[in-house]
Amino acid sequence: MRILGIDPGSVATGFGVVDSEAGKLIHVVHGTLRPAPRSSTAERLCYLHQAISKVVRDHAPDAAVVEQVFVSASARSALVLGQARGVALAAVGADGRAVVEYSASRIKLAVTGNGRADKAQVQNMVRRLLELERAPARDAADALAAAICHASTGRIGALNQTVRLPARRSALRVRRSL
Amino acid sequence: MRILGIDPGSVATGFGVVDSEAGKLIHVVHGTLRPAPRSSTAERLCYLHQAISKVVRDHAPDAAVVEQVFVSASARSALVLGQARGVALAAVGADGRAVVEYSASRIKLAVTGNGRADKAQVQNMVRRLLELERAPARDAADALAAAICHASTGRIGALNQTVRLPARRSALRVRRSL
Repeated sequence: MRILGIDPGSVATGFGVVDSEAGKLIHVVHGTLRPAPRSSTAERLCYLHQAISKVVRDHAPDAAVVEQVFVSASARSALVLGQARGVALAAVGADGRAVVEYSASRIKLAVTGNGRADKAQVQNMVRRLLELERAPARDAADALAAAICHASTGRIGALNQTVRLPARRSALRVRRSL
Repeated sequence: MRILGIDPGSVATGFGVVDSEAGKLIHVVHGTLRPAPRSSTAERLCYLHQAISKVVRDHAPDAAVVEQVFVSASARSALVLGQARGVALAAVGADGRAVVEYSASRIKLAVTGNGRADKAQVQNMVRRLLELERAPARDAADALAAAICHASTGRIGALNQTVRLPARRSALRVRRSL
């Protein structure tokens, strides 16, 4: 199973692709998408949609994972984040692809064993789990962590002989709570 | 000049296309896009992107207009509105098309002469200005009103012998304030 993780943001959007084969994680690609800072909102969102669509075309993931958002900041920043997030969800959801959302704490727990891990711990564990030479940049590390979380959730499901059901139920639940 | 107005929302998105020729407004098309209510967030946003892109392809507008948002509601609803709005901006901004934003009060002022007009007044004036048999539904009327506002701003610019400059300046200003 090939999984695309996305960490959308108005300034930078991280992405990461991971293959999960027989319980083993294989790194495929990761990176950070940065729209030109002086371009208009529409231009930046348009770039983001095209760039994510290209990642989807190039790597053909079976599923996409986006971190759930708990809105604590101002309504203004929620709107701006929402704009980038909406574009990312639309781009990865094309062709009827499954899009799963996990909470930040669940992703951190799956990757580091600690639901309150800091950014550096996530970066370091992503580097170790995927056997990368260097730790990925923050946004890309968060995207890879989301993909790893989905891979491990699927694996636990398989071990429990209930293949995919726990992961799918959870995905439906978090979707509805949006 | 052909102008596309969009009124994005998570439940319903209105659109309207108007031609502005020699100071006269000509209605082209309008409608409301409604994603299937029980589909996932990603599916709804994906539908929205595809449906707006189809309107853009079918009617080839020269410019697109989206109402500016003043966020007064909760951060949660701002995020949800932002997701739909981001998808709309990305779809209409494709191919380097100009995307202009006006405040709600400016649109109401341009269409009804009153910056605090209510929904019914906007619907009624849109019907009269475009010589429609019936008033359009609310979301579509708001989208047509945004397009009419841009057409009238361009016309005032032409009358002032400063062709387009006032409108463009204003567009830049509102963009930056995002």
